[in-house]
Parts: sequence; structure tokens; C-alpha cells
Amino acid sequence: MEGRKKAFDQLTQRGIEGLVCIGGDGSYMGAHLLNNEHGIACVGIPGTIDNDLYGTDYTIGYDTAINTAIEAIDRIRDTADSHNRVFIIEVMGRDSGFIALDSGIAGGAEGIMIPEDISDTDKLFQHFSNDERRTKSFSIIIVAEGDEEGGAFTHANRLKEKFPDIKLRVTILGHIQRGGNPSARDRILASSLGYHSVRALINGETNAALGIVDNKPFMIPLHEASTRKSSIDGELIKMADVLSR
Amino acid sequence: MEGRKKAFDQLTQRGIEGLVCIGGDGSYMGAHLLNNEHGIACVGIPGTIDNDLYGTDYTIGYDTAINTAIEAIDRIRDTADSHNRVFIIEVMGRDSGFIALDSGIAGGAEGIMIPEDISDTDKLFQHFSNDERRTKSFSIIIVAEGDEEGGAFTHANRLKEKFPDIKLRVTILGHIQRGGNPSARDRILASSLGYHSVRALINGETNAALGIVDNKPFMIPLHEASTRKSSIDGELIKMADVLSR
Amino acid sequence: MEGRKKAFDQLTQRGIEGLVCIGGDGSYMGAHLLNNEHGIACVGIPGTIDNDLYGTDYTIGYDTAINTAIEAIDRIRDTADSHNRVFIIEVMGRDSGFIALDSGIAGGAEGIMIPEDISDTDKLFQHFSNDERRTKSFSIIIVAEGDEEGGAFTHANRLKEKFPDIKLRVTILGHIQRGGNPSARDRILASSLGYHSVRALINGETNAALGIVDNKPFMIPLHEASTRKSSIDGELIKMADVLSR
Amino acid sequence: MEGRKKAFDQLTQRGIEGLVCIGGDGSYMGAHLLNNEHGIACVGIPGTIDNDLYGTDYTIGYDTAINTAIEAIDRIRDTADSHNRVFIIEVMGRDSGFIALDSGIAGGAEGIMIPEDISDTDKLFQHFSNDERRTKSFSIIIVAEGDEEGGAFTHANRLKEKFPDIKLRVTILGHIQRGGNPSARDRILASSLGYHSVRALINGETNAALGIVDNKPFMIPLHEASTRKSSIDGELIKMADVLSR
Repeated sequence: MEGRKKAFDQLTQRGIEGLVCIGGDGSYMGAHLLNNEHGIACVGIPGTIDNDLYGTDYTIGYDTAINTAIEAIDRIRDTADSHNRVFIIEVMGRDSGFIALDSGIAGGAEGIMIPEDISDTDKLFQHFSNDERRTKSFSIIIVAEGDEEGGAFTHANRLKEKFPDIKLRVTILGHIQRGGNPSARDRILASSLGYHSVRALINGETNAALGIVDNKPFMIPLHEASTRKSSIDGELIKMADVLSR
Repeated sequence: MEGRKKAFDQLTQRGIEGLVCIGGDGSYMGAHLLNNEHGIACVGIPGTIDNDLYGTDYTIGYDTAINTAIEAIDRIRDTADSHNRVFIIEVMGRDSGFIALDSGIAGGAEGIMIPEDISDTDKLFQHFSNDERRTKSFSIIIVAEGDEEGGAFTHANRLKEKFPDIKLRVTILGHIQRGGNPSARDRILASSLGYHSVRALINGETNAALGIVDNKPFMIPLHEASTRKSSIDGELIKMADVLSR
Repeated sequence: MEGRKKAFDQLTQRGIEGLVCIGGDGSYMGAHLLNNEHGIACVGIPGTIDNDLYGTDYTIGYDTAINTAIEAIDRIRDTADSHNRVFIIEVMGRDSGFIALDSGIAGGAEGIMIPEDISDTDKLFQHFSNDERRTKSFSIIIVAEGDEEGGAFTHANRLKEKFPDIKLRVTILGHIQRGGNPSARDRILASSLGYHSVRALINGETNAALGIVDNKPFMIPLHEASTRKSSIDGELIKMADVLSR
Repeated sequence: MEGRKKAFDQLTQRGIEGLVCIGGDGSYMGAHLLNNEHGIACVGIPGTIDNDLYGTDYTIGYDTAINTAIEAIDRIRDTADSHNRVFIIEVMGRDSGFIALDSGIAGGAEGIMIPEDISDTDKLFQHFSNDERRTKSFSIIIVAEGDEEGGAFTHANRLKEKFPDIKLRVTILGHIQRGGNPSARDRILASSLGYHSVRALINGETNAALGIVDNKPFMIPLHEASTRKSSIDGELIKMADVLSR
């Protein structure tokens, strides 16, 4: 609260009447309170690599992150292939499986472990119960760091216990998923959200979270956006299951 | 017609009952005729870097192409910046300005010349009529190869004539825009279209062009998809104008 | 030995008189024995990302690996910079610090921990004993997986113990350092070694390890190459110390 | 001369006693004269993508440029391959064929046209006089912009005249070869040259061009470096001929 008072003072000193706030739930909540307490017009736009913000199809940074992830997966596949190994790769996503699901589909993974799918371990065990799959070829398994059963090492231990003959390796992609040159799609999204957020402020909108839904600008109250979660399309999980067979 | 007879013979010999055809208008038309003449079930999915197919928001290859284009633009910007030059960069797009518009927005271009915008030259001349912009800094101008007034060299000549003091360079990106490792978005799009096209065939659909519109599968007759054109959102051109100022 | 008999049989069946063997010490030793036991002419060329083979300045795969490493370091630096963190990044190199040293210099690291330098921890502690360096900016520290004091996590624990106020993160680059599209330098090196190895076989050379030293082809006995180790230039370590200050 | 007086005044005002000058022949000559006329200690280090400076094996920027070139060649090969085309790709190199030769070898080109080789057109014609090579597969031909017989378009016209059935495309890589994130090798080279140039100044060296020859620092007078040219190893041209067959 003291921080917001300070922010308000700085803004008024500089003659700034409206604020575009880029971030996640925390930033949205801060902007919402700044508006309530001090009357500064605030529009929030979604900036997080996790893609789990409510009120938008995509968040700024997400496309770059999954491109980095699949580049890493492609590299690991080269080793997996030539050494006949199973690689368990942990990607970011503390509360959601967006990165894991999309990079798993794009990377041609044989298994994708996400918090939204409680039957993914069963599917994986079934996959490896086929002897040939287990011993004669390589596999890529993607795990969201926030999977309800644990990260990549936990899954590796289970798999090892169940199928002791699998040659397993674990890779945690970690912070390379942040940073890097932004992808085309992220730049276009950021340009578009920047443009529409300024227009919204000019039109007198405030306390609004601006996203892109079905390729069109979409606004909901900041408070709503900061308290609800985006959920993964169940149809997409079904598709991933079919493709990984 | 003879070709299609041969194709039909090959398909029946191999016991293939349905065909997923990946391509543009020409391939769609071929699939449509193959179905009409021989009764093979055909579903078309959009594969072209130009993104100008009717009945889909994105075509397979487009996202990779614009990522390649902005990578090239980023590199050229380094030279433009350190040598204080204006660069006119021609990107692909024989009949449409999708690549030019999106890579221009993503690449922070000062001018974007596309067939869909007949006033783009006026805007560009206005931009450079400001002395400072012309002589004291660098600029990136993107031209679609199919712009109604000509390619990059034509625009360079006009600009040179009007403003002889501009230091100009022309780059034609050409075929580097095709090929390369596919981007995450293109892989996900291709996976999704592949999945839904096979499901469509299983469900008895035929003669259909399958696309993704507003993140959902969308089908129209092949004939319609092969004879209509996708058009650029006018709002996007307006946005590009504001951002390039 | 049975394996080599089988290899010999396969070679003679196919009329192959000479073998170019790509690999590390193990493969060299195998080629040496294959020659001794069966008289097949063998030339070895260095293929390992670790760059620690004796008798060559560079091994095939090394340049690609350090390019992948610095790309990852660049990405991590973006996060380190914006969040004011110290990142400890572990790179490959079980027995040697080549990758760590070169990627540390190229990546602008503040500390490089390699098995060849026993005073590197002292230097690092000294670096962080400066209060400002520790708390007001970000740092990148590169650790070779085979460092004599342990990997990235060991170093992180020591640093944390000594300076509890440091905000630390650990990243293990792992298998992304293998694989990927080969760099220009690796392709040229591989082309050159391929060319010279075939010429060597034609000229009647055998049991030789072929490398490139001072930009020229260089040959030593396979046995020697497989039993000696390449060592890091001490001058390079001194240079890294100066640059990281 | 006036410019150098001004430079000298600026240096003395700021208490700068020595200068490290990064560039090509022109910059070296300027540094040489600045030293002669005003006594400022000057050391030159080689910064040009063309790699044709005398007194060094590699220049800063060269490795990045050839990596960019082969990335572009890889992309074009995808199209050449799927459409059965011959691509003539022009790379930078006004006075020398370094970029063309190295990127041609690394890119697996079937022909490399450089100013240093006057028989390259004969070799190319011979290559395509084989009917199968001309009509049944694809080819990549690299041309240095400064080839003694002309650039890519000139070579395309000649080839078209001689073999009218070839499906040809021309791509001029142009300014994308400058700029971009520096490669690992370029960063290490730049770090090393920076380190040794400062040490040279401290040791009282002046009027010296510093390069790296056979992996060791190497110094010659600036005047000599600015008036002689580096030449391509004839053995490398021979190797390229063998590899392209």
C-alpha cells in the first residue's frame, strides 16, 4: 500500500494519467488496487511465459518460450535417437501445463505429463509396457514442472522402478525458457496489445485487463482476470494422446 | 485429367480410400476434381507460406516464414543503424501482403508496402518529408513482392528520385523465406490439422477444405476455398500505420 | 575382441580395405586394435564435443556445442539481469574445462570453474567479497561438470554458505549441448578431416590419428592419441581471469 | 588529416594515451597516420566480415557471417531439393573469396565461384555437362560478389545460355550477412584480441596490427597490414573441388 502511494506520487509528478501494466495476476491485482486507491486509469496486458492468464488466448512471451523449448527438444532428440535413450524433459509451468502440452505436441513427444491430466502416468506406463517401444527405440517425455505427481526426477524414478531396463536421462530446461529474442508472434501480439491498450485508455477505459481472444481484442475487469485461471482445452489433451501413440 | 486418372489408379492399387491434400488453391482444385471424377474422399489442409488461403486464419509454413523474415530484418537493422541507412527489404507475397504486414509490424518497420493498401506510398513520402527522419537516423521499409506499384527496386527508385539525399540499400529476402526448421506454432497447427483431417475422413466428410478459424477447426467446400481469397483485416493496416509513425 | 572379428568379417565381405573412424579415445583404441589384430588400415578423426583429444586443436562437434552453450547463456543473462540474480550454469566436460572456459569467455562470465584450475573458487569468493558485486548486479558463473570441487549445485551451496544474501539460481545445460545443426566451423573441420583422412588412406597411412594443428593436418599414432590428453593453455586461463574482473 | 587532428585533440583532452583501433585496411592506415602525425600509440585489430586482412588467420565478424550464410543456404536447399532446382547464391566478398569458399564447403555446394580461381566456370560447366546432374537433382552454387567474371546474375545467364534446360534461381544474400548475434568463435577471438592489444599497449608497442596466427598472437606493422592482402590457401580450393564432385 505504501508502494502504491509512492507510485501514485511519481505518476502525478510526471503528469502521467494512465498506466499500461504488463504482467501476471500479481501485477493485475496491483494495478486494480492502484486504481481503487488513487484513481489512476489502469489497463493490464498479459505478460508471462506460462500462458495461464484468464481473458486471453495467448500471453506475451509464451510463443518465444515454446520455440526455445522445441529447439532444445530437437537437440535432445538427436542424442536420444543415436544412443537409443528415453529422455524426460522438464519444462516450465508451475500451475499449468500449457508449455508442456504445446511443446510436447510440437516436439513429437511420446508422453506429456501435466497437472490438468491425472491419467497421464497410466498412459505412459501403457506406452512402455510394449517391449519394443521400451528397448528398441528412443522416446521424449515432457513434464510440466508443476505436474501433480512431481517433476522430471520423480517421474524418472517411477518409470525406472516399473521398467528397470529403460535407459533414462533427465533434463531440466529451466531458465533458458525465459529470455532470448522474441518470436514473430510474440512481437505482433505485444504490438497489438500495446496499440489497443493505449486506445482503451484514450477511450476512458480503466481497471480493465486486455487480451486477445479469437484474434480480437477482449476486455474484462482487472479483478476478474487476476482471480480466475485459464484452463486447457480438453480436446487438445485428447489430440495429444492420439498423436503420441 | 490424365494425371488424376493415374493418381486414382495408384490409390486404389494401394487400397487407399481417402486423401489428405496439403497445399494451396491449385492443390485444392486438383483434390476437388479428383473427388468429382473418381469419388476418392478428399480433405484439403492449407500449406503455403503466403497465408492467403480462404477459410483459415493461418496456413502451415506462414509462422516459420515470418520468423525467418524478422530474423533477417533484425540482422539488417544492425547495419542500417550503424551506417545510418534506409533499407528497403522485399519479402514474399505475390498476391497478398500478409508476410509484409506481419513481419513489418514485428520488425518495427517505418513503412510497409502491400498490394492491399493503395495509399502506402503517400504515407512513406510523408514520413521522409521530415528532414530529420530522412538524414539523421535509419529506417526499415518492407515491400511485398506483389505490391501493386512494384517490388523493392521500383520503390527504391521512386524514393531516390523524390529524396536524393537518402542513403538507400535494397535487399530481396527471396527463397530463404521457405525452408528451415518449422516454428512451434507451425508444428502445432500442422499436428492439429492432421488430426482433424483424419477425423473428418473417418466421419465421412469429403471435398472439404479444413482450416483453423478462431482456434477451432473450420470446414468449407474445397471448391469455395480454391476460388476465394483471404483478405487482410483493415484494422491491422491502421494499427501498422500508427505503430510506424 | 569378438566384436572386432565381426567387424573385420563385415569389412572383408564388402571389399572395404580402409576405415575412417570418427570418435574419441575409446574409438581410437578400437581402431588401433582392429588394425593390429586384422590388418585393416585405420585412420581416426576426432569427434567429441569435449575438445580434449590429443593431437588436434579442435574436435568435430565442439564449436557447435559452445555455440549452443552461449545461446543458452545469453538467454539466462536476460533473466539474471532483470531479476538481479547470480546464475550458476553447468556445462559439459567430464574430464576437462574446454567447453566451460570457451563458453565462459564468450558468454562474459564472472567466474569459470574448471578441473584444470584449482584456485578458481578462491577467485570467485574474492569476486563476491565486494558487496556491490554481490547485491547490486547480476552474475553468470560457468562450472564444468567435471570440476575437481564438484558440479553446479556443490558450488551453489558453498557460495550460499559464504554469502547468504546472494540470490542464486542453478541451471544444468545437459544434453542440449549435443545435437542441433552443426556450426560452419564444425562443418568445415569435418569436411577437411574427411578429405585428408581419405588421402592418408590412399597414401598408405594407417594406425594414425588425424587432427588439425595450427590450421594444418597433423598425424600421430592412434595409440598415442588414445592414451594422452589434450591440456588447456594456461595463458587462456590467465586471460579469462583478467576479462572476468 | 584535419579529422586526425580533431581525434588527437579529443584523445588528449580525455587523457587517453593509447588507442585500439578495430577495422580493416582503411582504419589501419588511419591509425598508422594518427601515430605518425601525433604520436598516439596505436594497435589495430582486425574487424571485417571478409576475412581478407593480412597478418591474421581470422577477422572478427567472419565466423558469424559464414554461420549466417550457411543457415541461409540450408533453408534454400530445402526448396532446391523439393522443387528440383539449381540455386545460385551470391555471398559477400568484394575482393576475396573467403566467405564463398568456406560457406560453399560448409554448405555442400556443387560449385564455388571466387576471384582467386580463374578456372571455376570451366569446372562448373563440366559438372553440368553430365545430363543427370543437370536435370534430375538439385544444386547449390555459391558466388563471391567480387568474382572476376561477375556476380550471381552473370553466372546465371551464362549457365542458362549453355544449358537451357536447367531450372535456375538466383538469391543475393546481401546485408543479412552483417549483423546478428556474434558466434562463439567471434566472441572468443574478439576477447582474445582485446586482451592482447591492451597488453601490447601497456608493453609499449605501437603502430602494430595484432592478429591471431596459428592460435597465437601475431604482430606486424600497421602499414604492412594495411597494404598487403591475405590470400586463400590453394590447397583449400583443391579440397573444395574434390568435395563438390
